[in-house]
Amino acid sequence: MNGISQITEVLAAPTPDAWLQLACERWQELLVDHAYCEKKAASSALAMMFAYPEEESLALALARLAREELRHFEQVNRLMRKLGVPFRRLQPGRYAGQLRAAAAAHEPARRLDLLLIAALIEARSCERFGRLAPLLPAPLGGFYADLQQAESRHFSLYLQFAADACDAREPLRWQQRLEELAKLEAELVCAPDLQFRFHSGPPV
Amino acid sequence: MNGISQITEVLAAPTPDAWLQLACERWQELLVDHAYCEKKAASSALAMMFAYPEEESLALALARLAREELRHFEQVNRLMRKLGVPFRRLQPGRYAGQLRAAAAAHEPARRLDLLLIAALIEARSCERFGRLAPLLPAPLGGFYADLQQAESRHFSLYLQFAADACDAREPLRWQQRLEELAKLEAELVCAPDLQFRFHSGPPV
Repeated sequence: MNGISQITEVLAAPTPDAWLQLACERWQELLVDHAYCEKKAASSALAMMFAYPEEESLALALARLAREELRHFEQVNRLMRKLGVPFRRLQPGRYAGQLRAAAAAHEPARRLDLLLIAALIEARSCERFGRLAPLLPAPLGGFYADLQQAESRHFSLYLQFAADACDAREPLRWQQRLEELAKLEAELVCAPDLQFRFHSGPPV
Repeated sequence: MNGISQITEVLAAPTPDAWLQLACERWQELLVDHAYCEKKAASSALAMMFAYPEEESLALALARLAREELRHFEQVNRLMRKLGVPFRRLQPGRYAGQLRAAAAAHEPARRLDLLLIAALIEARSCERFGRLAPLLPAPLGGFYADLQQAESRHFSLYLQFAADACDAREPLRWQQRLEELAKLEAELVCAPDLQFRFHSGPPV
């Protein structure tokens, strides 16, 4: 089973068509928010490196992942320049904040939740890039197809660390928790949303 | 004038010999703190990307710089593994926190201060790597000689952004502020220090 087929099984609902249609119309705003998302993904990976510094393998994997997110940030910025899309400040959407608010406050449950939430965000990004790629003209469509592959790798990485750390006596715990969080994640991308963002719901 | 000769002019005092001697004795602890410093340097660059998102050139330069710091973090970790240096949690030293506490609270002075403080931290790192390199055996000495070059580039980058943004009516403002902050920086690395860290003062 490759990463991308696994992702469609993990996500509790596909992206609504109404969001895809809006994203094709508002692709400029999508790019501005996308740049923010790449920067935020790097920053979240770094935050985990600071939270769990004694986990050497995790730290090395997250450092590499953060470097890749930063390279994507640079690529999105260069594409914005090329396509004449001006930067503007956007308020963050509801998605990542509400997902992170669902993370347990205490360890070791918090670590598991943060890894699973990061995996779900990567999974949703992968799904959206994959569905947007054939709908958008070059160079955007091809760029998103490339990014789909990267997000799929990041999803697998976060999921692997979540699974590896689960207590051998509770081997199904991470799957159960993933299902719970995937349900919340699907609600956030399916419920009507006043804002338009890379991870928003369909328009009201 | 190359970056490294400029650095010896910018720093208000050289690293005390007593610190260098201690660093050669406690090179294992130095490596552990060094890994933390690289991670922290990436995190500080990202924090500036979030604080000034509308500055496209700064964002791109900082993203590249953060990627380089993360690569160094990975290199330090691999070296620790190779040399059998175990990770341990260290309390951060006084240096970066006290320097950042000196930054102005309001803009545009804060932006200038943050860039100059980042430049000074890179300058001090460059100076210490340069002085440690000939004192330490391989592979550590050669690694530090390589890092000296990178830190010199980062110093120049931060300084250039600080200088570029200064009001044309106050072209000397950044130099004056750099001198003030360099004086504080020198006090922090010259005053006796209870802790031993990459940026600490000499032992009490």
